[in-house]
Amino acid sequence: MKARIITIGDEILIGQIVDTNSAWMAQALGAMGIDVERMVSIADTREAIHEALDEVLQTEVHLVLMTGGLGPTKDDITKQALAEWFESGWRTEASVLERVERYFAMRGIPMPEVNRSQAQVPEKCTVLTNAHGSAPGMWFEKSEKIFVSMPGVPFEMKAIFEHELVPRLDLLRNGQAIVHKTVMTQGQGESTLMEMITEWENELPKQQLKLAYLPSPGAVRLRVSGRGEDPLETRERVERAVQNLLPLIADHVYGFDDESLESAVGKWMIDRKVSVATAESCTGGYVAHLLTSVPGSSAYFKGSVVVYANDVKTGMLGVKAEDIAAHGAVSETVAMQMAIGACTRLASDYAIATTGIAGPDGGSEDKPVGTVWIAIASPHRVFARRFQMGRQRDRNIRMTALQALQLLRKEILHDAKISKLEALL
Amino acid sequence: MKARIITIGDEILIGQIVDTNSAWMAQALGAMGIDVERMVSIADTREAIHEALDEVLQTEVHLVLMTGGLGPTKDDITKQALAEWFESGWRTEASVLERVERYFAMRGIPMPEVNRSQAQVPEKCTVLTNAHGSAPGMWFEKSEKIFVSMPGVPFEMKAIFEHELVPRLDLLRNGQAIVHKTVMTQGQGESTLMEMITEWENELPKQQLKLAYLPSPGAVRLRVSGRGEDPLETRERVERAVQNLLPLIADHVYGFDDESLESAVGKWMIDRKVSVATAESCTGGYVAHLLTSVPGSSAYFKGSVVVYANDVKTGMLGVKAEDIAAHGAVSETVAMQMAIGACTRLASDYAIATTGIAGPDGGSEDKPVGTVWIAIASPHRVFARRFQMGRQRDRNIRMTALQALQLLRKEILHDAKISKLEALL
Repeated sequence: MKARIITIGDEILIGQIVDTNSAWMAQALGAMGIDVERMVSIADTREAIHEALDEVLQTEVHLVLMTGGLGPTKDDITKQALAEWFESGWRTEASVLERVERYFAMRGIPMPEVNRSQAQVPEKCTVLTNAHGSAPGMWFEKSEKIFVSMPGVPFEMKAIFEHELVPRLDLLRNGQAIVHKTVMTQGQGESTLMEMITEWENELPKQQLKLAYLPSPGAVRLRVSGRGEDPLETRERVERAVQNLLPLIADHVYGFDDESLESAVGKWMIDRKVSVATAESCTGGYVAHLLTSVPGSSAYFKGSVVVYANDVKTGMLGVKAEDIAAHGAVSETVAMQMAIGACTRLASDYAIATTGIAGPDGGSEDKPVGTVWIAIASPHRVFARRFQMGRQRDRNIRMTALQALQLLRKEILHDAKISKLEALL
Repeated sequence: MKARIITIGDEILIGQIVDTNSAWMAQALGAMGIDVERMVSIADTREAIHEALDEVLQTEVHLVLMTGGLGPTKDDITKQALAEWFESGWRTEASVLERVERYFAMRGIPMPEVNRSQAQVPEKCTVLTNAHGSAPGMWFEKSEKIFVSMPGVPFEMKAIFEHELVPRLDLLRNGQAIVHKTVMTQGQGESTLMEMITEWENELPKQQLKLAYLPSPGAVRLRVSGRGEDPLETRERVERAVQNLLPLIADHVYGFDDESLESAVGKWMIDRKVSVATAESCTGGYVAHLLTSVPGSSAYFKGSVVVYANDVKTGMLGVKAEDIAAHGAVSETVAMQMAIGACTRLASDYAIATTGIAGPDGGSEDKPVGTVWIAIASPHRVFARRFQMGRQRDRNIRMTALQALQLLRKEILHDAKISKLEALL
């Protein structure tokens, strides 16, 4: 089954919001074996919506998912445009009205009058219940194609998708399995990785497999894809290729299938029953944020000290003022003292410390913008490494945090006497 | 001038990456008065690329921006597909080869052989220099339309866009001004805001203005748009409408035009020469990360203590163990003691403290998931407020952080005796 995604909204076309719905829906459809052949973002005008729907009729697309333009406010006209295109009258859906009333009552807010209109739906649609908001989803059929319209608010869309759409689609689809497995790497660029795996990559076409390199700041994902009649055989073919890949790049791999590095590290901490704390200067709390973004991280994350002012480094972490004076705040010795301070004062087994010049300003000849020291303290030792990043603040913060988490991961494995390759099995 | 954006890559269609390039380019084009009429994401196959280009010939689009598919690795075939579609031979661009060699030399990495192919470009294109990477941008012309191809790596694309594309487009464009002004609000939902401004909104069509509501977790942007022959008159018309809007919702507005709340708060701290620290439990360092993501934040950000373990709350912040025992870690008194502890120990004028149950697990009947206390300490007082968020961890963390920053902003204004409306002038 082929699908097209249409996102509706001027806010997308003028670049005011980044469309994250399309990626989420594509992933969810892919997992069901439904290929997305195209994503389109259009204006919220009748003409643009009708044109995009007309185009679909010329294609082999069987499923069209639309998001956006269903809010109660006046800039939203999708529902009107759909009623026209499907040549449908209107009906009042009592369940929607009830739900909207309950929604506002629960939050103790009076219901704005405008929300009443959300219970008006095109007669020809089946309503898909929106458990988290007032705008219902809608399911239409025309010319043997399915058209689904959902609100653009991501968590409302996701709930409708999971609870209302997936069961209906499960009844309909059939056919080929598509299997992806993604190897998550950190710390090496795309073309360097490519050189490491050239021979392996050249063998892929013979196994009817495809490879894609997906770079992002500080990380590259390697996606191996296979397709076949038999889901089990396809899965095995993909798995075998991945098992052959791992020994070539084990030093840079930390996990699979869009697992985050912070989640991978977290699992090892739970496994080894160890805890961590951070002492952050240039990353400004971002390492702590990544660690605590993982549900259940309170099991291993003790806390963090974010130190911007030098006197705070001294007072909160016990960094020696004379060392800051002699070597500067961005130095090996200060990084190591920060890590030791975090371990001691936050009573953790391990600690990450970062100090550097995130940019875009600051820096000197000796220590240009992008100079970063990362220290790791363990129950057995403390060490620091210097990295040279670029000039972009947000990129430097992210790359430093990932590098620090990878160093921590390797140190935990080292202490557990687990090889990098064993860790991936 | 109308533009279309085409992003190329299976990684987009299977949802493995979120396409942020399109939004960035659309904003940049909008600022130049160039409307994006549609965004399309397609597969990296010859057929999909040729089909998308063929379609453009049927439209009034004058400028096509393509990103993706220009890397050196084997999954990238855009350059081939373009050479075919434009019926072009090949040439070696010496400047690109030199640049690629220099790029690897600077980083002290040997140049992978595969990168040599990046100097091969279609004869019919003008090369757009890529200052940050090895894949050049390309400018083609056909049927009185312009086609530009750029790499998909965001910071490479942005540099080509700014330094190579903008000057060339400036020479070509003419015509109507489009003016947007966006009012940034925090803490109220879309439909509640709408009720507050109904009368004002009803007057907009008479002034040939449009309004859009753009919700995101914890924040709603209100975008006023105007269009006209005269850029100055259009700008004034939009400004007047915004000035009439502000008194209606001053309590919720913190700034304009996609300024972040952390940046708006930062400006007030510089203006009032005050400093801030944070003591974070449920936000896990995210408030510190937001504050330090602003360049120059070291002028007012002292540091942060992220406390997950209760003993850390006691040791690092001086929260009384007996109060944690009596009231729980998620309580008014603990939040206030955390804020005071941060002010005292990090020597700051103001402090933000957060404690709550971020979810998805935890919580009790008294304090369900999503219960959050936020405390603010100032030179004059300390207070805490309770909020009830939902069940989604990432959403709760973000909403709590924004709420805390807004409370801090209001407290700084209060202490400076500046009204909320004056603050926006």
